Amino acid sequence: MRAYAPWLKTGSTMIGAQVGKILESKHPKYPVDRKIHGYFGWRTHTVVNPDESASKEQIMKDKPYLLPDFGHLPSSLAVGMLGMPGNTAYFGFMDICKPQEGETAVVSTAAGAVGMHVGQLAKIHGLQVIGITGSDAKCKWVVDDLGFDHAINYKTQDVSAALKEAAPKGFDCYFDNVGGNISTSVIYQMKLGGRIAVCGSTSSYNSPSLPKTSILQPAIVFKQLRMEGFVVTRYGDRWFEGIEKNMGWIKEGKLKYRETVTHGFENMYNAFLGLLRGENIGKAVVKA
Amino acid sequence: MRAYAPWLKTGSTMIGAQVGKILESKHPKYPVDRKIHGYFGWRTHTVVNPDESASKEQIMKDKPYLLPDFGHLPSSLAVGMLGMPGNTAYFGFMDICKPQEGETAVVSTAAGAVGMHVGQLAKIHGLQVIGITGSDAKCKWVVDDLGFDHAINYKTQDVSAALKEAAPKGFDCYFDNVGGNISTSVIYQMKLGGRIAVCGSTSSYNSPSLPKTSILQPAIVFKQLRMEGFVVTRYGDRWFEGIEKNMGWIKEGKLKYRETVTHGFENMYNAFLGLLRGENIGKAVVKA
Repeated sequence: MRAYAPWLKTGSTMIGAQVGKILESKHPKYPVDRKIHGYFGWRTHTVVNPDESASKEQIMKDKPYLLPDFGHLPSSLAVGMLGMPGNTAYFGFMDICKPQEGETAVVSTAAGAVGMHVGQLAKIHGLQVIGITGSDAKCKWVVDDLGFDHAINYKTQDVSAALKEAAPKGFDCYFDNVGGNISTSVIYQMKLGGRIAVCGSTSSYNSPSLPKTSILQPAIVFKQLRMEGFVVTRYGDRWFEGIEKNMGWIKEGKLKYRETVTHGFENMYNAFLGLLRGENIGKAVVKA
Repeated sequence: MRAYAPWLKTGSTMIGAQVGKILESKHPKYPVDRKIHGYFGWRTHTVVNPDESASKEQIMKDKPYLLPDFGHLPSSLAVGMLGMPGNTAYFGFMDICKPQEGETAVVSTAAGAVGMHVGQLAKIHGLQVIGITGSDAKCKWVVDDLGFDHAINYKTQDVSAALKEAAPKGFDCYFDNVGGNISTSVIYQMKLGGRIAVCGSTSSYNSPSLPKTSILQPAIVFKQLRMEGFVVTRYGDRWFEGIEKNMGWIKEGKLKYRETVTHGFENMYNAFLGLLRGENIGKAVVKA
């Protein structure tokens, strides 16, 4: 939302993914009472033809889909670990960072919906993991509850020095959600042949002009780094593979989920402000 | 030389690739009068065991090798289009930029040994090519003699505006030799799915601290760009494939070479200063 909202025209419905329950249906494949995922935006009710993409004012054009069987897991995971954020973590980390057992990974926005997931994927695959996040409580949570090896509070610590202390030999994988100076510090400490998945650039989303940082090319060329940006919709044809994989790890207890839940559609705006202020831990969800 | 020289200790022999003639030999595979390529540095004569890597003070450790049969082509090409610079262009552009017919490519340091080669490779493969270089004479040469579609003089033109005018729809491939603001201008005009080969970072080589530029992550993520740094020695096991390919194109007249030749070993230093000042067109060679 934060990344795409500046592209919306004033008066548009705010964008967002939603799990909805089908109240009425004229489509035999979409029966009443089944749950559906769609990029419907901030709406209480939506009239939609599921054979077409979401409404034209939406930026995410992907068609709605019926939720797969989550077993006993909450359906809100369809907008979290078993949906777009989870698939962002799964495909971005596995396909672009290409983690190998014994390697070292860094993830920024480590306590957010995607970061918390990437760090746990790294642990599942036998890597050492360092998280970067914005409060001591978040640092403590990713280490104590999620099993990260180290966590750095970028608001109170010298990120470059803390990275050096956590892994003096450097990093093989970096899952970049922030861009800017934090990422520059990580990238200059990558190992030869390191892989960087660029998933977001939160450091610039709320900036009126692009922030400046040291040029990256010297690190990229001499360390022979590969840096690739992606938007998860590119993995649309493997969407349910990602959901199945993540669901398997959740059911095995290897992947923990956490949501910061706000109740009431009328509190949506405050929930979003809370996200911008860094108040949520894990996926921010509003239950209408 | 420019990139690696800062890492040399004072008193070391200056680094550099050389074509030498064997004057004396105790090795049956390296007979007298054959020509040899080696990273011997700035020396008139060298005693070397060709079964070992170049002398320990050299940064390029690759072993010397006998020149393949160049036919009627000059042996100086073994330090140019049929050597390290040529293989840098060939592997970096073909393997990392992965050019496709009909696409558009940009190359910086377009009139240098590597840039002039990359631009011609792009034309051979059916791309539109825009070169960025530092004088009107160089711009004219790459367009009139080498067949580039456009050339931009970064010292006198607004690079961003000139790029936009040359290719309003943007670029698929960028072969980056410079880093810094020029590269940032190119990268923010890449097309979705663009590929960037980072070969050098001349904008920072002579800078006491890293220059700053706008952060690249917003372009990298939303355009889903892939940016990869490389040092050509990684293609050591395909070395003679590169030489054969480039030699074939030269013999077909599709790939033109040009050298700025300085005569006399004693003029080596001035030749190097000329390169730093941007005085050479094509490969700078010293004939001792």
